[in-house]
Amino acid sequence: MRALLFHCKNYRIKIDKLANRPKDIMPEEVNEKEQKSSDCIVILITIEKGDEIEKVSNKLIIEVQKMSEDVGSKNVVLLPFAHLSNNLATSEEAIRAIKLVEEILINKYEVVRSHFGSHKSLLLDTYGHPGNVRYREF
Amino acid sequence: MRALLFHCKNYRIKIDKLANRPKDIMPEEVNEKEQKSSDCIVILITIEKGDEIEKVSNKLIIEVQKMSEDVGSKNVVLLPFAHLSNNLATSEEAIRAIKLVEEILINKYEVVRSHFGSHKSLLLDTYGHPGNVRYREF
Repeated sequence: MRALLFHCKNYRIKIDKLANRPKDIMPEEVNEKEQKSSDCIVILITIEKGDEIEKVSNKLIIEVQKMSEDVGSKNVVLLPFAHLSNNLATSEEAIRAIKLVEEILINKYEVVRSHFGSHKSLLLDTYGHPGNVRYREF
Repeated sequence: MRALLFHCKNYRIKIDKLANRPKDIMPEEVNEKEQKSSDCIVILITIEKGDEIEKVSNKLIIEVQKMSEDVGSKNVVLLPFAHLSNNLATSEEAIRAIKLVEEILINKYEVVRSHFGSHKSLLLDTYGHPGNVRYREF
C-alpha cells in the first residue's frame, strides 16, 4: 500500500466516466457523482499486489489518527487512487482495503469515501504548513 | 525518479516557509513566492537516491512530450516534490535533475518551475478525462 495524505482547505471530485483499464478492473456502482469536503485530510490510496490487507489497512488508520491530531481536523476523505504504484492489487482487494479503513474510521471521523474505478476531475487545495503532505508505504 | 503527471485546469502554489527536513536539505533561493498556471501539465517529481540523472531526466521529458500531445497543452509545471518516495536523492541531485528537465522543455513549452525546498500551499484542479493522471517510475 502506498498513500499520500494532504491537509486540504477544499476537496472536490466529479466522476467523468467509469474506467476500463487495467483490463480486469471492476468499478463500483456510482452512488454520488460529485463529492466535496473542506478542512479535511485527503488520502490518495493505492493498494498493491501482495499487500496483507488487514495489516496495511491498520497501519494507514494509525497514520490518519496521527495526522488528524497534528492538523486538528476530523474530516477524512478516502480516495482510491491507481497512480502511486505500477504494481496494483485486484479491484476486489483494493475495495476490500478501502472499505476496511472506512469501517474503522467512521467511528471517530467524518468520512467521505470516493468511488473506485472511475476517471474523475479532482480538486486538491492544500494548506501550506509543515506536515501538510505525507507519503507512506506499508 | 518517480513522477505524477496531472492535466490541470488550474495550478497554484504559495510558499509558506523554507523546509528544514531532511536535515541536510538545501533549499533554493526564493524568487517567486507565488506561481500559477492554467490548462497545464503539472508534474510532481521525486528524485531518488541512485538515480542516473541524465537518463531519468530524459525519460521524463519523453513522457511530458507524449502527454502534451495527448492532452493538447504546451504549458508545463515542474514541481519538485519530496513525497512520492522514502528514498530521496540529495538536494544537489534533485535540483540538477529538475534544472536539466527544465532546460530541455523550455525550448518547446511554456514552463513554470516551482521552488525546491519549501512548504507550500498547493492547488491542483484537474480535468476528468481518461489519461488525466499518470504515474511513472524511471
